[in-house]
Amino acid sequence: MSGKLTKRSEDYSKWYNELVVKADLAENSAVRGCMVVKPYGYAIWENMQKVLDEMFKETGHENAYFPLLVPKSLFEAEEKNAEGFAKECAVVTHYRLKNDPDKEGKLMVDPNAKLEEELVVRPTSEAIIWNTYKGWIESYRDLPLLVNQWANVMRWEMRTRLFLRTAEFLWQEGHTAHETEAEALEETTRMQNVYAEFAENYMAMPVIKGVKTESERFAGALDTYTIEALMQDGKALQAGTSHFLGQNFAEAFDVKFTTKEGKKEYVWASSWGVSTRLIGGLIMTHSDDLGLVLPPKLAPIQVVIVPIFRKEEQLDAISEKVSGIVKSLKKRGVSVKFDNRTTHKPGWKFAEYELKGVPLRVAMGPRDLENGTLELARRDTLTKEVVEQDGIEDKIVALLEEIQESLLGKAKSYRDEHITKVDDFEEFKKVIDTKGGFVLAHWDGTEETEDKIKELTKATIRCIALDQEEEQGVCVYSGNPSSKRVLFAKAY
Amino acid sequence: MSGKLTKRSEDYSKWYNELVVKADLAENSAVRGCMVVKPYGYAIWENMQKVLDEMFKETGHENAYFPLLVPKSLFEAEEKNAEGFAKECAVVTHYRLKNDPDKEGKLMVDPNAKLEEELVVRPTSEAIIWNTYKGWIESYRDLPLLVNQWANVMRWEMRTRLFLRTAEFLWQEGHTAHETEAEALEETTRMQNVYAEFAENYMAMPVIKGVKTESERFAGALDTYTIEALMQDGKALQAGTSHFLGQNFAEAFDVKFTTKEGKKEYVWASSWGVSTRLIGGLIMTHSDDLGLVLPPKLAPIQVVIVPIFRKEEQLDAISEKVSGIVKSLKKRGVSVKFDNRTTHKPGWKFAEYELKGVPLRVAMGPRDLENGTLELARRDTLTKEVVEQDGIEDKIVALLEEIQESLLGKAKSYRDEHITKVDDFEEFKKVIDTKGGFVLAHWDGTEETEDKIKELTKATIRCIALDQEEEQGVCVYSGNPSSKRVLFAKAY
Repeated sequence: MSGKLTKRSEDYSKWYNELVVKADLAENSAVRGCMVVKPYGYAIWENMQKVLDEMFKETGHENAYFPLLVPKSLFEAEEKNAEGFAKECAVVTHYRLKNDPDKEGKLMVDPNAKLEEELVVRPTSEAIIWNTYKGWIESYRDLPLLVNQWANVMRWEMRTRLFLRTAEFLWQEGHTAHETEAEALEETTRMQNVYAEFAENYMAMPVIKGVKTESERFAGALDTYTIEALMQDGKALQAGTSHFLGQNFAEAFDVKFTTKEGKKEYVWASSWGVSTRLIGGLIMTHSDDLGLVLPPKLAPIQVVIVPIFRKEEQLDAISEKVSGIVKSLKKRGVSVKFDNRTTHKPGWKFAEYELKGVPLRVAMGPRDLENGTLELARRDTLTKEVVEQDGIEDKIVALLEEIQESLLGKAKSYRDEHITKVDDFEEFKKVIDTKGGFVLAHWDGTEETEDKIKELTKATIRCIALDQEEEQGVCVYSGNPSSKRVLFAKAY
Repeated sequence: MSGKLTKRSEDYSKWYNELVVKADLAENSAVRGCMVVKPYGYAIWENMQKVLDEMFKETGHENAYFPLLVPKSLFEAEEKNAEGFAKECAVVTHYRLKNDPDKEGKLMVDPNAKLEEELVVRPTSEAIIWNTYKGWIESYRDLPLLVNQWANVMRWEMRTRLFLRTAEFLWQEGHTAHETEAEALEETTRMQNVYAEFAENYMAMPVIKGVKTESERFAGALDTYTIEALMQDGKALQAGTSHFLGQNFAEAFDVKFTTKEGKKEYVWASSWGVSTRLIGGLIMTHSDDLGLVLPPKLAPIQVVIVPIFRKEEQLDAISEKVSGIVKSLKKRGVSVKFDNRTTHKPGWKFAEYELKGVPLRVAMGPRDLENGTLELARRDTLTKEVVEQDGIEDKIVALLEEIQESLLGKAKSYRDEHITKVDDFEEFKKVIDTKGGFVLAHWDGTEETEDKIKELTKATIRCIALDQEEEQGVCVYSGNPSSKRVLFAKAY
């Protein structure tokens, strides 16, 4: 809370980094690239978890927990997957420390406690889970197997940023097994839809549903379905992915089932995940130069009530009035905080809750008490109005819904204005460099062109949108024939 | 579900191991000492988490998340704590794998990716958290700091058993900071009480609240408060601990605050935790030779309804009747499953739900349809009765409460019958060896005697019960004077 935030227009990246720390969401830790998620940030994650967990259970999934560490021999079983993650694996090699004989009070790794086989801290859990599924799946009666795990994972990234890319992060990973290719594919897109619904209806963050090109696929997948969002600085954010794994992991771990006809076949698989990265997306979709703007459905505090008073008895009178409002708001399921601290002034509190993105702020002073009014301030529009205390609960509930919708609408407009159809490569470069956002352009389908465009513009193919219609054209770079446009953007 | 369980009277340990696996709670994984918590076991853990998390929040705590890995230099800062856990630490030494040039398709640890400082997989998080608190605490206004974390931790134990002692386990760890010694102590016992309430009111597992002797204390604590339960085989289980840490960690990490008077002082601390070990305690408190017996308040499925039918149209008619009952039970907050699978026979299902400890089983057949009845079977007493369908929801809700109470009562009787007051060492040995349970005996307060008794009987001092009255006597082993009895037992 010390000092003002950098303006987004000055330095978007700096604004983001400052905001995450000042709003008490997270901070860097003593461990390179690993973050501490502070209580206020964690409360947002808990709200996300609660909604997602319900959505997973409604679609038939159960939670389970698999080991953190993966023996190297299992990890390398599915070669593409292993190759994709090998370069960023934290590895446990020893299981004991001992007193350092040369340094009083210090410890050292005990060389006699070297593991026979190294253990990898999971960067994702396909290997350990499919090795387990081998024992769970015998016949078609055991299918589909629909399991999700909430867990921490570790990817030793070189450049990290709070929430967006951290060496350790929290996520959920669904891992499913099916009888047929069609069922596995159906599951893959079902979960992509769950993610898209969550992003739009709870995060108020519009997303484009699409499929990744081969070079952007999850290591070990036959297809990666994605939801792509657009941040305020015109860069895209991959917000969730759902992978169709075909029979790759079933083959690597020899997971077969007996069909209804008595044949032995490999099962079909999907996996899908979203992570604490979503919090980064949430911040960069709605927040402004004053601080966070949070959609009511995920805000840890939806309404804060600040008393304005000079004398103790004024606070008492206000508190009495407020306690009734708090009670009936809570009954309506509204998360409300009455900040009656005497250690901080109202102005300080106003700035604090602005910074923390509380959707609605109520202020009540002695004159309000006399007049039966209060002041209601919206965080998203920064508008204030004096309203009657009577019926305030209905008004607040309605306003929270309105704010939720309004945030989605605003983000959608911004996003839609930043999808630019381009047919010329000079224009392509110009749009990417100046306006930003998604560029919808024809691509010849080759990795060569994809790489070249990336090299020249830093833009990557975010996805081939699922609702993209066939359209004959020529590749914006190579001039070769193309039957579809794809979405390019610079990305986080 | 294949084959019968070993009887408890034959081999209690074997019975436990078989039950955990057969009831689909957990299984051993490919990683030495680490378990897979299967969906049914995890659902119990989720129910535990939900209740505990609410209790923590009601007592003013917030959740946060701290890094999995702890730099060695931080880990060793609090020497006693470090010494206590050093021998069982998994250590990350490298951050990359690479292709093994000698083995096609295999990976090896990249020797060029050795960390400058080794990272310990957290066995507990005091070190990383107190290093973080240093930046969070400046003045008395920042206190108390009441934070909890739900996380996985790792202790490289040599002998492991599913839930009871595993190399990786899931737990919560609360870490609090206070202005005064009195407040920290109050917090320590508050959380011990929260654990005791949870154990009794939800797990139906009676516990004794006490304090540990010095030799059984948490490494780095000034006092460890514990709740001790008694398992069916007469062995005690430490089910939860709450530590008064004094200023040890504040000193080790230099965490000072400015008092109201403007002085700089070290803060006072507590930490407290319960883990997936509780599931082991739950199993060994209530279950029988037929399988699990779960208290309704934590059972993933409270009521299962099994249709008895030969023809499709009978199933249809039963399903119609059942759907109304399911709906109104759900409305009452009862977790109910209608098992209408045609792939398994009723007898198979009965055995399955018996094994899985579902508190109430409803069976409904064609004759029940005619008569407006159904069969209700209690898992805990194995009694069955035919009752009217009318008003079945009230009956079920009442029965679930009755079962919950009855389980606690039964466990309490068993526990109370197994607290034996002993004043003679021969008698002591005999009780420990034959009857088992807690032995309440005088102890001279020395570690020497404690060790000797342990050596001779395998019994340890579980705790000095908080409700233990002063009583002059002589130590059961040494004959030296003692002013209090303590509780001895063999323990898990």
